Amino acid sequence: MSCVSLTTDYGLVDGFVAACHGVLLRLAPGVPIVDVTHLVPRGDVRRGSAVLAATVPHLPSGAAHVAVVDPGVGTGRRALAVRTPAGFLVGPDNGLLVPGAEVLGGVLAAVDLTVPAGTPATFHGRDVFVPAAAALLTGRPLDTLGTPVDPESLVRLPALLARVSAGPGGTRLESEVLLVDTFGNVALAAPAELLAEAGLRPGARARLTCPPPSRALDPGDPGDPLGSVELAVGVTFGSVRPGELVLYADSSGLAAVARRDGDAARALGLAPGDRVVIAPL
Amino acid sequence: MSCVSLTTDYGLVDGFVAACHGVLLRLAPGVPIVDVTHLVPRGDVRRGSAVLAATVPHLPSGAAHVAVVDPGVGTGRRALAVRTPAGFLVGPDNGLLVPGAEVLGGVLAAVDLTVPAGTPATFHGRDVFVPAAAALLTGRPLDTLGTPVDPESLVRLPALLARVSAGPGGTRLESEVLLVDTFGNVALAAPAELLAEAGLRPGARARLTCPPPSRALDPGDPGDPLGSVELAVGVTFGSVRPGELVLYADSSGLAAVARRDGDAARALGLAPGDRVVIAPL
Amino acid sequence: MSCVSLTTDYGLVDGFVAACHGVLLRLAPGVPIVDVTHLVPRGDVRRGSAVLAATVPHLPSGAAHVAVVDPGVGTGRRALAVRTPAGFLVGPDNGLLVPGAEVLGGVLAAVDLTVPAGTPATFHGRDVFVPAAAALLTGRPLDTLGTPVDPESLVRLPALLARVSAGPGGTRLESEVLLVDTFGNVALAAPAELLAEAGLRPGARARLTCPPPSRALDPGDPGDPLGSVELAVGVTFGSVRPGELVLYADSSGLAAVARRDGDAARALGLAPGDRVVIAPL
Repeated sequence: MSCVSLTTDYGLVDGFVAACHGVLLRLAPGVPIVDVTHLVPRGDVRRGSAVLAATVPHLPSGAAHVAVVDPGVGTGRRALAVRTPAGFLVGPDNGLLVPGAEVLGGVLAAVDLTVPAGTPATFHGRDVFVPAAAALLTGRPLDTLGTPVDPESLVRLPALLARVSAGPGGTRLESEVLLVDTFGNVALAAPAELLAEAGLRPGARARLTCPPPSRALDPGDPGDPLGSVELAVGVTFGSVRPGELVLYADSSGLAAVARRDGDAARALGLAPGDRVVIAPL
Repeated sequence: MSCVSLTTDYGLVDGFVAACHGVLLRLAPGVPIVDVTHLVPRGDVRRGSAVLAATVPHLPSGAAHVAVVDPGVGTGRRALAVRTPAGFLVGPDNGLLVPGAEVLGGVLAAVDLTVPAGTPATFHGRDVFVPAAAALLTGRPLDTLGTPVDPESLVRLPALLARVSAGPGGTRLESEVLLVDTFGNVALAAPAELLAEAGLRPGARARLTCPPPSRALDPGDPGDPLGSVELAVGVTFGSVRPGELVLYADSSGLAAVARRDGDAARALGLAPGDRVVIAPL
Repeated sequence: MSCVSLTTDYGLVDGFVAACHGVLLRLAPGVPIVDVTHLVPRGDVRRGSAVLAATVPHLPSGAAHVAVVDPGVGTGRRALAVRTPAGFLVGPDNGLLVPGAEVLGGVLAAVDLTVPAGTPATFHGRDVFVPAAAALLTGRPLDTLGTPVDPESLVRLPALLARVSAGPGGTRLESEVLLVDTFGNVALAAPAELLAEAGLRPGARARLTCPPPSRALDPGDPGDPLGSVELAVGVTFGSVRPGELVLYADSSGLAAVARRDGDAARALGLAPGDRVVIAPL
């Protein structure tokens, strides 16, 4: 028995999520439902895709992951269901599903879901995507749900910068910020493996620079006027003292910056999409 | 196997919802639980009733819907369980349940729930309503749970205005606003069928007027000093360009106004209970 | 069939809670999951412990309650699993679990959970506590999960003041505020039984005094410059008129102050940890 997961920007104040649960209870009774989050900021496809990709590895194999951050509902955008080696993803063709699909082993096949005439045009989560997930989990073959789509043709979000490069004093990690979590921890687009490759090993110290036009550094932090700050490389928050910054491999396998008992994003003025350069000292 | 649904103003920061889930797990093990919302604004019976009525059609038939927006808990208000052709509703007798019951086919029978002596007086959700729902779903007859109540005697919220009338230039739709959803879409009290009756068909254009004392229109919108705005009649957000307003039949079957990629309620200064007049151009 | 409950400060915007659900679905399929709350303010161990203790009595016996408010994750704090007569509690050794354990009958045995080498250091909820709960619910003996810990050695939060004492005019109740719920109701650390012991019986009137340095009283309330207010002793909100304050036994068995159709904490300027003195008039 696997599960259906739901990742949306529907919020929690209306009954939208419950309507999706109700459709699942009717079409796939007994299948567990996991609410990943319904608080993706409205229309923020990048964040939705990042949360989805970080979560799917921890959900049962063979699941159907429905994701709906869909400002294009009711326009011509395709409605997708895709198969990966470890489960299905269902949602709009706007880039939302691709990072999660890659984490699950890549897109093996995809269809543009058939939307029956008369389907309301504004609630495809309830009326198109969730029913497709229920069909897949109850054994209906993917290719009966729509018309085949070339996996290469799926809309993809622009790739984020994440690389090890040569700097003035040796190697360094350049990366854009992927997301900021509820604690203010800053996850970079860079996989944690790049830390070692850049010479950023636990116990070392490093300098993090936010090139313009990033936000100003918090004056309360030990930075300098050029927008840089020194920090420790560690394995967890406990590697540093309260209030200090630490660069570490986070629980999703990404390079990340946290502030013990504090909010690193606020301290550093970092938001998703910002670019940082981190060099060992 | 049906389900129990929960619609409350309990919020998500305390353990009130979990206590209700726990009681259900003990009294009706294996019955799925659907949280409709627990973020009804405190004591907002109108909004609670609207969210409940919009959601119940999508939940399994035969469910027991518990709704608790209950500023009168601990006073003399009756505690109801009602049977409809498509399931049960349980909650206070303050108008909260009636619109949902009508959506499910109308009240066939109702009882004033017996509250055992010694029941805490402040948490009837946990101690009275959820146990009643569990009893109903495990087969206990409605009439054993309390004393019969004449369905005609149930407290009802004042009816909202929703009608097609003759205006200076032909027919027009007059309606109060029923609710504003998390996206700022404005659902009117008028069923979508009234749109065609008023001559408001997809492809047409219309004028929406907010008679005083409604809020001022957003200066950024194409309105006029008398508080009116022109908008398209469409079938979905995609019927108009980003930032434009559209009048459409929403996914709950109500006439509604949305702003593509925006917030129609804020743009129009509309809140629940406000009155609008919409006439074809 | 019992359940696993989750009480955390993980928030609802990331996928942290879903990752925990996913681990449970994989390790203990079919076991119901109850989300107590994930909105404990970050690092607020006192509030987390109070919500947990108020909720566990309403969850099925034999459950495993996972609680994670864990600013010390990744430091040397112990990771606990404890057995009580009515179920298990799992979480960090920082005082979070103890009040809940006492409500369930006291700690019969405890272990410091073995954390396998290579476990990510920042997400013990997903990687240590939830797997331990799943193991316990699927029959694995507690003592195989770690090294025994003397129950007396568990970290405990400082006890809150709650006593009946002799005042100038007779007995009175002195208590610190335990928590303020989403409605603004003020739960005291004092069990409701102390009300009668202090002569505070339904129907009586009382004077509540907030000794300095508590916050100022709302000028809109009938108080006096010395920070005191008169209120009724009742059994529920309905015991007083709208806007009035009432002292009562709340649904968790604590002495509490509410304001009918209002927010008592705001009216009285009370927050957790504040001290009040309540004397019969």
